[in-house]
Amino acid sequence: MLTDRVKQILSWYGSESIGVRTNLARMMNTGRLAGTGKLVILPVDQGFEHGPARTFAPNPAGYDPRYHFELALEAGCNAYAAPKGQLEAAAGDYAGEIPLILKLNNSDTLLSTDDPCSAVTSSVEDALHLGASAIGFTIYPGSGMRNEMYEQIREISAEARSVGLPTVIWSYPRGSGLSKDGETAIDVVAYAAHIACQLGAHIVKVKPPTAHIEQKEAKKVYESKGIKIDTLADRISHVVESCFGGRRIVIFSGGAAKGEAEVLAEIQGIADGGGFGSIMGRNAFQRPKAEALQLLSKAMDIYAKAK
Amino acid sequence: MLTDRVKQILSWYGSESIGVRTNLARMMNTGRLAGTGKLVILPVDQGFEHGPARTFAPNPAGYDPRYHFELALEAGCNAYAAPKGQLEAAAGDYAGEIPLILKLNNSDTLLSTDDPCSAVTSSVEDALHLGASAIGFTIYPGSGMRNEMYEQIREISAEARSVGLPTVIWSYPRGSGLSKDGETAIDVVAYAAHIACQLGAHIVKVKPPTAHIEQKEAKKVYESKGIKIDTLADRISHVVESCFGGRRIVIFSGGAAKGEAEVLAEIQGIADGGGFGSIMGRNAFQRPKAEALQLLSKAMDIYAKAK
Amino acid sequence: MLTDRVKQILSWYGSESIGVRTNLARMMNTGRLAGTGKLVILPVDQGFEHGPARTFAPNPAGYDPRYHFELALEAGCNAYAAPKGQLEAAAGDYAGEIPLILKLNNSDTLLSTDDPCSAVTSSVEDALHLGASAIGFTIYPGSGMRNEMYEQIREISAEARSVGLPTVIWSYPRGSGLSKDGETAIDVVAYAAHIACQLGAHIVKVKPPTAHIEQKEAKKVYESKGIKIDTLADRISHVVESCFGGRRIVIFSGGAAKGEAEVLAEIQGIADGGGFGSIMGRNAFQRPKAEALQLLSKAMDIYAKAK
Amino acid sequence: MLTDRVKQILSWYGSESIGVRTNLARMMNTGRLAGTGKLVILPVDQGFEHGPARTFAPNPAGYDPRYHFELALEAGCNAYAAPKGQLEAAAGDYAGEIPLILKLNNSDTLLSTDDPCSAVTSSVEDALHLGASAIGFTIYPGSGMRNEMYEQIREISAEARSVGLPTVIWSYPRGSGLSKDGETAIDVVAYAAHIACQLGAHIVKVKPPTAHIEQKEAKKVYESKGIKIDTLADRISHVVESCFGGRRIVIFSGGAAKGEAEVLAEIQGIADGGGFGSIMGRNAFQRPKAEALQLLSKAMDIYAKAK
Amino acid sequence: MLTDRVKQILSWYGSESIGVRTNLARMMNTGRLAGTGKLVILPVDQGFEHGPARTFAPNPAGYDPRYHFELALEAGCNAYAAPKGQLEAAAGDYAGEIPLILKLNNSDTLLSTDDPCSAVTSSVEDALHLGASAIGFTIYPGSGMRNEMYEQIREISAEARSVGLPTVIWSYPRGSGLSKDGETAIDVVAYAAHIACQLGAHIVKVKPPTAHIEQKEAKKVYESKGIKIDTLADRISHVVESCFGGRRIVIFSGGAAKGEAEVLAEIQGIADGGGFGSIMGRNAFQRPKAEALQLLSKAMDIYAKAK
Repeated sequence: MLTDRVKQILSWYGSESIGVRTNLARMMNTGRLAGTGKLVILPVDQGFEHGPARTFAPNPAGYDPRYHFELALEAGCNAYAAPKGQLEAAAGDYAGEIPLILKLNNSDTLLSTDDPCSAVTSSVEDALHLGASAIGFTIYPGSGMRNEMYEQIREISAEARSVGLPTVIWSYPRGSGLSKDGETAIDVVAYAAHIACQLGAHIVKVKPPTAHIEQKEAKKVYESKGIKIDTLADRISHVVESCFGGRRIVIFSGGAAKGEAEVLAEIQGIADGGGFGSIMGRNAFQRPKAEALQLLSKAMDIYAKAK
Repeated sequence: MLTDRVKQILSWYGSESIGVRTNLARMMNTGRLAGTGKLVILPVDQGFEHGPARTFAPNPAGYDPRYHFELALEAGCNAYAAPKGQLEAAAGDYAGEIPLILKLNNSDTLLSTDDPCSAVTSSVEDALHLGASAIGFTIYPGSGMRNEMYEQIREISAEARSVGLPTVIWSYPRGSGLSKDGETAIDVVAYAAHIACQLGAHIVKVKPPTAHIEQKEAKKVYESKGIKIDTLADRISHVVESCFGGRRIVIFSGGAAKGEAEVLAEIQGIADGGGFGSIMGRNAFQRPKAEALQLLSKAMDIYAKAK
Repeated sequence: MLTDRVKQILSWYGSESIGVRTNLARMMNTGRLAGTGKLVILPVDQGFEHGPARTFAPNPAGYDPRYHFELALEAGCNAYAAPKGQLEAAAGDYAGEIPLILKLNNSDTLLSTDDPCSAVTSSVEDALHLGASAIGFTIYPGSGMRNEMYEQIREISAEARSVGLPTVIWSYPRGSGLSKDGETAIDVVAYAAHIACQLGAHIVKVKPPTAHIEQKEAKKVYESKGIKIDTLADRISHVVESCFGGRRIVIFSGGAAKGEAEVLAEIQGIADGGGFGSIMGRNAFQRPKAEALQLLSKAMDIYAKAK
Repeated sequence: MLTDRVKQILSWYGSESIGVRTNLARMMNTGRLAGTGKLVILPVDQGFEHGPARTFAPNPAGYDPRYHFELALEAGCNAYAAPKGQLEAAAGDYAGEIPLILKLNNSDTLLSTDDPCSAVTSSVEDALHLGASAIGFTIYPGSGMRNEMYEQIREISAEARSVGLPTVIWSYPRGSGLSKDGETAIDVVAYAAHIACQLGAHIVKVKPPTAHIEQKEAKKVYESKGIKIDTLADRISHVVESCFGGRRIVIFSGGAAKGEAEVLAEIQGIADGGGFGSIMGRNAFQRPKAEALQLLSKAMDIYAKAK
Repeated sequence: MLTDRVKQILSWYGSESIGVRTNLARMMNTGRLAGTGKLVILPVDQGFEHGPARTFAPNPAGYDPRYHFELALEAGCNAYAAPKGQLEAAAGDYAGEIPLILKLNNSDTLLSTDDPCSAVTSSVEDALHLGASAIGFTIYPGSGMRNEMYEQIREISAEARSVGLPTVIWSYPRGSGLSKDGETAIDVVAYAAHIACQLGAHIVKVKPPTAHIEQKEAKKVYESKGIKIDTLADRISHVVESCFGGRRIVIFSGGAAKGEAEVLAEIQGIADGGGFGSIMGRNAFQRPKAEALQLLSKAMDIYAKAK
C-alpha cells in the first residue's frame, strides 16, 4: 500500500504508463526509506569509469560483483545501479531481491576528450533480461557531443517507457562549453537538471552545486532577482525548483570518498534543501562493509527525518 | 462551423489530408481569435534554450509547468507550445483544454557553436501521446548543419502528416553563412520563411525583419525592383508574399521581454503588414499574470481589428 | 498513340518497367512538342536556390505557386518541375493537367561551401502523393560530397523505379575538384552527363558547355583524337554522344535571364547538336507572361523543326 | 558437364551455396576458355572512372553500350563487367548471351582525394534485375576509408550470396598509407589479394605486381625467407599462393593501353605464374574491333596452353 | 559429462542462455585440456593483420587454410579462431571436428592511424553458417574510436547471444590516449580486461602485462594499497581479479614468435597467476609442424598441472 507522499510524487508523473509508475513506486517502496519518498541508491560504475584498481583496491571485496548486491541489501538501499557486465555476473543470484538500475552508457578514462560522450554499452532489452526497475543514462550538457547524447536518450527512453521502465538521467555538465569550475556552478547544475527533465527523465541525478555562477547572462539574473545560493540547502532548493517547480525526483551524488562527517554534512544540506536523496557510490563501497553500513544508516536517518 | 476566412485559409492547404486540415482548423477555432484566421500562441521553450533561472526567475510561478497551461487558457491563446518534458509534466491535468504544439527539437546555451543545430528531443509518437495538435521544429538556415535539419524535418514532417499533425517551422537564420545583423535582415528572413514553405511547413514562424539587406546579390534586386522595406508593415508584407504569395500562415515572434508599448507597436506593424499573428513567450510568461493577461488581451485586440 | 520517334526513344530504355516507360512517354506526349521526342520543361526551384526576391521580384506574379502551373500549361511545356512545398501549394488545383517533376533535393545560398551537397527535402512518397510523372535530383560531380549524392540517388532512384517513376538528374559539376571555368568545360560537362547516365538517369540535364578543357589528361585526348568542340552544336553533339552514344535523353538549361536573341541562338545550337530540349526557368517565369509565352513558343518552334 | 579442372576449382568453394557455385561454373563454362579454369573478362568501367572522351574517343564505337556486349561475345570472353547504367542500356538486347558482372561501386576523377573510396552506385537487386552472374566491388587497401569499404562489401556480399551471386573484388592498394610505387609493390599486392580473400571474395582481381617491396617489416621476411620475386611469373605465383595457398581464383588487370607484344608478354608471365586469367579493358575496347579480337584471341591462346 | 571445475566456471555465467553456456562448455570439453577449465586456443588472423608473407613464409604450409585446422586438431587445442575467408575456405572439410571462433573484425597494416578501429568483416550469420562455437571481436581501449567499437560489440554480442553464441573479446589498449609502454602496462591491461567484462565478454583475451604503470591516478592506488605486480604471476593474478573477482575466463596471448624456453616461462607465469590459458598463434603455426606440436604439448602440460 502506498503512503500519501509516494502517491503525491507519483501524481506528478500522470502522463506515464502504469508500468513506469509501478517501477517508480517499487523503488520508493524498497529498503529503509520505503514510503518516505526519499531515496538512497548504491551506484557502482566506477570500475568502468576509473578502472578496477582505483575503484576496488581500497576494499577488495568489491572486485566480486556479488558484494554490491549484498551491501545494497544489508544497508536497505532503494536500488542498486551498475553497468551490464557487472549486473549480469551476479543478478541471477539475487533475482527479485532489490530493484536494479541498468546503467546503459559508460565512459572510460583511458582517453580524455574535450567533448566527451559515453558509449552506449547495453540496451533496454538487457534491462528486461535483468529484471531491472529502471534504466540509467549519462548526458554531458556543455559537450560538443550533447546532441548525440540527447538523441540517444530520446530513443532509448521511448523504448524503455514502452516496456514500463522509468529513465534515470545522470546530468553532468562537462565539455568545451564550460570551465572546470563551471561543471558544478549553481547556474549550470540547475540548467543541466532542467534539461534532463525536458528530455523526459523520471529521476534526475546531479552533483551538489557550488555557489559559483558560470554564465554572464545567468549571473545578471541571479543577482537582479535575488536567487538565494549561499548555503548548500539554498542551492539544492533552487535545483529542485528548476526541475518543474519541484515536481520531479532529483537526487544528488557524493563524489570522491571523504570523511564521514563531511559526507553527512553534505547530506544534511541536500535534505534541508528538499532534495529527494543520494546516490552514494565510492563513499559506500570503498569503506569496509561495517563502516559503509554505518554511514549509509546515518545518511538514511537524515533523510527519514527530513520534511 | 468554420468562418469564411478560416475556410479560405484552409483552401490553401488543399494537398493535405483531412487530419492536417482539421488540426489547423482546431487551432484557428480556439481562444479569443477563433474564426478570425489570426493566431496568438504561447511558446515556453526558453527553459531549455536559456536555462531555468533566466527564464522563470522573473516570474517564479512559471517554474511550475501547470502555470503556462493556465496562462494560455485564461488569455484565450490559440495554442501552447513547449518541449516534451514540460508538456508531459502537466498535460494530463489539462487534457483537451487547449491545442498543444510539441516542440520536437531544442538547443541549450551551455555550448555555442558556429554552425548550430538543435537536438531532436522528442517524436511524433510523443506528440500523439500528448494529444497535440501540431509539431514544432526549428531550422537554422545559414548554418553548416542546415542539410541535417532540412532532412530531419522532411522525415519528421512526413510522419506527422501521416497521423494528421501539421508542422510548424521556427525558421531562424543563423550560422557561419551569416553576419549577426544578417540574422534579421529582410532578405534573409524572407528567404528563411520561403525555405520553410518549400520544406512543407503549414505554419511558419520568423522574427520581425529589419531593413538591413545582407546579401549583395539580393541588394541589387531589392533596389532595382523597388521592393518596399522601410516600415515594419512593408517588411512583414514582403515576408508574407515570399511565402507562396500569401498562401501560407506566417507568424512572428517577439523576442526578449520589453515594455508594453514597444510590444504593441510591433504587433501593430505585423498586423498592418498582413501577418497572421504572434507567438509571444517571454513578453507573456515573464510578466506577473495579471499584466501578462492584459498585454495578451491588447495584442489580440489589434489582430481582431486587422484586415 | 506513340510516334515512331517516341517509340524509338523508348526502345533505349528496354531494361525499364512499363511504369517508367509510361511516364517517359507521358512527358514526351504532352504539350506543343508532343510526339517529336523533344522537350521543353519549366523548372522553378530558384526560390529555394536563390531566395524569393531574386527569383520572383522581376515578375511578382510568380510569388504565387499557381502562376507557374498556368505558365507551363499555356506555353505547352512537356512538364513542370519544382520543390515539394511549391508543388503542394497548388497541385490540387491542377491535378492531371500537366506532368510534374518533383525536385527531391535542393540547396540554398544562405551559406556557401567548398564541397556542396543539396539537402534531400522530399521523397518518392511525396512524388506519388502529388501524382508526379518523374523525380528530379541534383548531383555535383567534383564535390567532396559526391559519394553521398551518388548513393542517395541510387537509393531514391531504385525506390522511384519500383513505383514507375523515371529519374531526371541535374548534373552540375562543382566543388573543390574543379575551377570555376571547369564547371562548364566541355570535358567536364560531358563527363558529368556520362556519370548521370551510369547512375541510371532516364533524363540528364546539364548546362551548355564552353570550349574550355579542364583536365590535362582529357586535353591530350581531345586534341589527339580531334574531337570537335568549336561550336556549341559540336559540343552539344559530343555531350549527347557521351550519353551512351546518344541513347539517353539529354536536355540543357539556360542559366540566368538574358535577351531573347541570345536565348534563341543558344537553343538553335542545342537543337543543331542533337540535344533533346531545354529546361528553361528564369528566362521564362521572370519575363512578363506574354513575353514568356512568346519566347517559349519560338524555342519550341526551333525544336519542332530540328532533326 | 563440368571438366575435372572446373570441378576441382569449385571444390575450393565448398562452404558456398549451390547458387554461388553455379554462377562460378557458368563463367568458367563460357567462351573460348570454357572448361579450362582460365578466364578472360571484358571490363568497361573507364567511362565512369576516367570520363567518356578518354575512354571511348580512341575507338568511338565504344560510346554505344551495345558495342561491348558484341565485342565480348565475338571474342569469346567468359564475362563482361560494367556499371549499372551501361549494362541497363543494352542488357535487354543481349539477355542470356554472356555472363554479366555488375560493378557495384565506382569512382570518378573529377576530384582526387588522399583517402579514396568509391561510391556504391548500384545494388544486388540491380544485379538480379540484369540477370547478372556476379557482382563486382572495388576496395582500396591503404586508404583511410578502407573500413567503410570492407564493411560495405561485407553487407553487399552477404546479400549477393543469399541470392546465389558470387563476389568479385577489385583489390587496388591506394591511399595515404602507401607510396605511389607501393600501390603495385609485390608485398602490397599480395597483401591486398589476401585481404580480398579474407573478406570472402570468390574471384580476386589485382594488378600485376612489380619487384618493389613497400613495407620495411615485409622486406625483412621476403629477404630472410628467400621469397622469389624476380620475374613476373615468380611474383604472380607468390600472389596466387597468398590467396589461401592457391585455392581462390585470382585474375590480373592489364592497365593502360599498350602495344600488343607488351600485352602478350605480360599475359605469358601471368599464365606462367599460375594466374587464372586476365581482365582486359582498355587494351581491348580502345583498339579497332578487328585488332581487339585478334589480341584477345592470342591472349586466350596463351591461357589455353597454360598449366 | 562435465567436471566439477567446468560446472563451477559455468556457474559464473548464470545470466546466460543454455545455448551460450553449452558453447562455453563445448570449448572447455575439447582437446587435451578438456575438463580442466583451462584453454589453449589457436588463432590465425595475422594474414589479415600483418600480410601473408610476414605470416606464412616462415612455415609456408600455413598458406593453405586446411593446415591450421589440422594443427589445432593434432595438438588438441580447445578451439581455432580465424577470419571469415580463411575459415570458409576449409571449414567444410572439417565440419564438427573442432570448435571454431569466427573473428568478426579485423585490421590490416597497410595504413596506420592514431586512433585505430578494426573493420567489421563478418557477421553472426556467418558464424552460424560456419557452425562456429563463439564469435571473436577486438576492441582498442584508449583509441578515439573506442565508443564505435564498444557500440558495435554491444549490438553484435546481443545478436550472438540470441543464437546461443558466446563472445570472446580481444581487449588491446591502443590509441592516442596511451603511450607505447602503456599498451601493456599493468594498470591499463587490468582496466582493459575489466572493460571487456563490463561489455559482456564471456572470455577475455589480453596481453601479458608488464610492471609499468601508465596512469598517474592509478599509480597512487597501486602504491598506497600495495597491489603486488613484481612477477608475471602477480600481474596475471591482478588481471584475473580485475575480471569480476576471478569470475570470468581470462586468457593471454603470446605475441611475436620467440624461443621455446621463453614461451614456456611466460606460460608458467600465466598458470601460476591463475590465468585460464593461452591463445597462441605465431609461436605455433610459424614453427614447423612437429616443433609446434611439441611446444603446444608442453604448454598444455603446464596448464594441466596448474591449480
